[in-house]
Amino acid sequence: MSTLCEQILGAPAGEYVDRPVDLAFAHDGTGVLTRETLREMGVDTIPHPERVRLIFDHIVPANTSITADLQKELREYACSSGIALSDVGGGICHQVMSEGVVRPGQIVVGADSHTCTLGAFGAFATGVGATDMAAIWASGSTWFRVPETVRVTLAGRLDGAAEPKDVALAYVGKLGMDGASYRALEFLGDGAAGISMAGRLTLCNMAVETGAKTGMFYADDVTLQYLAGYGVAAERQEPEECCAAASVAIDLDAVAPLVAVPHRVDTVRPVAEVAGTPLDQVFVGTCTNGRFEDLQRFARIVRGRQVAVRTIVVPASRSVLRQAAATGVLADIVEAGCMIAAPGCGPCLGAHSGVLGEGEVCLSTANRNFKNRMGVGGEIYLSSVATAAASALTGTITEPEGA
Amino acid sequence: MSTLCEQILGAPAGEYVDRPVDLAFAHDGTGVLTRETLREMGVDTIPHPERVRLIFDHIVPANTSITADLQKELREYACSSGIALSDVGGGICHQVMSEGVVRPGQIVVGADSHTCTLGAFGAFATGVGATDMAAIWASGSTWFRVPETVRVTLAGRLDGAAEPKDVALAYVGKLGMDGASYRALEFLGDGAAGISMAGRLTLCNMAVETGAKTGMFYADDVTLQYLAGYGVAAERQEPEECCAAASVAIDLDAVAPLVAVPHRVDTVRPVAEVAGTPLDQVFVGTCTNGRFEDLQRFARIVRGRQVAVRTIVVPASRSVLRQAAATGVLADIVEAGCMIAAPGCGPCLGAHSGVLGEGEVCLSTANRNFKNRMGVGGEIYLSSVATAAASALTGTITEPEGA
Repeated sequence: MSTLCEQILGAPAGEYVDRPVDLAFAHDGTGVLTRETLREMGVDTIPHPERVRLIFDHIVPANTSITADLQKELREYACSSGIALSDVGGGICHQVMSEGVVRPGQIVVGADSHTCTLGAFGAFATGVGATDMAAIWASGSTWFRVPETVRVTLAGRLDGAAEPKDVALAYVGKLGMDGASYRALEFLGDGAAGISMAGRLTLCNMAVETGAKTGMFYADDVTLQYLAGYGVAAERQEPEECCAAASVAIDLDAVAPLVAVPHRVDTVRPVAEVAGTPLDQVFVGTCTNGRFEDLQRFARIVRGRQVAVRTIVVPASRSVLRQAAATGVLADIVEAGCMIAAPGCGPCLGAHSGVLGEGEVCLSTANRNFKNRMGVGGEIYLSSVATAAASALTGTITEPEGA
Repeated sequence: MSTLCEQILGAPAGEYVDRPVDLAFAHDGTGVLTRETLREMGVDTIPHPERVRLIFDHIVPANTSITADLQKELREYACSSGIALSDVGGGICHQVMSEGVVRPGQIVVGADSHTCTLGAFGAFATGVGATDMAAIWASGSTWFRVPETVRVTLAGRLDGAAEPKDVALAYVGKLGMDGASYRALEFLGDGAAGISMAGRLTLCNMAVETGAKTGMFYADDVTLQYLAGYGVAAERQEPEECCAAASVAIDLDAVAPLVAVPHRVDTVRPVAEVAGTPLDQVFVGTCTNGRFEDLQRFARIVRGRQVAVRTIVVPASRSVLRQAAATGVLADIVEAGCMIAAPGCGPCLGAHSGVLGEGEVCLSTANRNFKNRMGVGGEIYLSSVATAAASALTGTITEPEGA
């Protein structure tokens, strides 16, 4: 009897395996290094370009001549190598890959640490380095040590003000930043079925913040229905009795709105404890919380009111942006006084947009609040979308309604 | 009998006058220098803060820690000095000032060369240096040499595919980049009445590209009706017989879609002559062509189709963005595959977003195509919105329909 990891990788935890990968993607940051490594390796041809993707999301559109030149070179490389390119404005790699590309049971590698997001489909999805990615593009396969598994059992239902993001902050707080190093998190239990694909992506997204290789949901009716929307057929996966290395139980009914305070993701507190903290910026977006469901929730809260602090909303993909524009969600967000930026990582990495000044405080729906990440001397609090919306309206950290 | 300049400045052309200014604004770039100069001058108090504005538009939101720190300092300065601040996301200074702030007959200075835009209201509006601005904030007044006037007489009506932007390119082409140095352009004639405020702002915006101090329309019914929309009452201005230094006649019916080719604004050609030039980027926005009327025209052309090249659309102000969101214009633009950025100058100055790579070609609705402006080795063509829209759909420079 096996864990989901063991089923997909076809070997027991602890064994080393060599496996062909189904999908291997890089973004504009890592892609440059992958390309450079391939050049150094003397690799001219990618044997399986149909498994490879380049997705521009980190600095979009280009912020400097250097970035623009690198993106131009990558564009030309994608074209000449037969690699599908999602150009600037298409969205964040993990989101783009979640829109009907990744399927249950696949082995997926991305040259970005949050590739674990895609485990939400019951895939084995993990981040690799940009040079490893070069070897994978060149050979079509890679090795793994099959991870041991931490079972995160979800009971009950989220209601009130808590969101999947609060559950993510809860398990990161419980496990700590190295509590699941090189392990896989499996989310299961009666409560799992009640969580939407968007919520599962959020939950798996933060797995790496505990040191885990990936976070995974078993493919179920929710997964199949979501994929059917993209014309993709898939099969259910069933949890088996198995020997997990550790387990965590979370009662969804009991999760309160949480916030990770500077400068660690695992220093998690109830929002109530830091309520009133003055903010200079609110940021809603990223591979954690930039999906349509997130924007919709944000819009519902700010509709007809005005934000009291500069608020940047970045849809995770063009598809999310289109949905938001078509449904009036975008209009509500704009009307409330928020800024909208091109789909991509936006201010999350502090590289080109929405950078914080010395001493400025940001409430962000992203997944990392490391010191100086969004600007030298800036402070980052991480929260759910509902908390971000309530806080944007007051200009201070504020509990969402229903909390 | 006087020119409009002479009427407003109260002296004949060539005389030096000292005048109180009605409005004096700086943006995030020049504002930093103005603030620094005031500090060096030992000026602690601004005598008339109600005449002063700080408008963040050049790098919004902040792209680096340095920018973020400077903006933070300016924010604090505005707050402590009683200066109204339009923060990141509010829009381009000239657009913000055009939304019910500037009135006919005023003397307006901005620490940005395109302050001439606001002459569209029948104001004397001109750019000054950031250090000059410090002296103006400190004293409330400044000196001018009353400019001589070039009368640009507009006959007929724009129809077909040509836009006010094409008229602007036409007069810049006729006058050349120093053809009106230190003069004022007055737009008048039967054709003037048929041009909307948005069109007038576009026409006056490019005055500085001929070396002119400003471009001006006499306030008429169009002006009064526009201002009434903002609850502002104003009076008509009448052209007097006077001695213009030069005159230019433009027959609006005969204006064809034009494009300024790299790297001078005054190397103007019919679009037809460069049609087919492959593009890497299309940019719609700026103080020249980022108004609601512009976005609406763009949306009408791209609606239901897909752009064939990366296309960045930047509303000139939050108000423009809100209008675009509320009317479905934004949804049409998004649906066609364009990127939307936060209201501001966007890629125009090549400082932080939408920068071109070596050899990349951009068709832009902005006002300047100087070498390397949007990125080292990039090439910039300037056109109307209709030409930009038609070209975005094909990926090459393309004549708009009706041309």
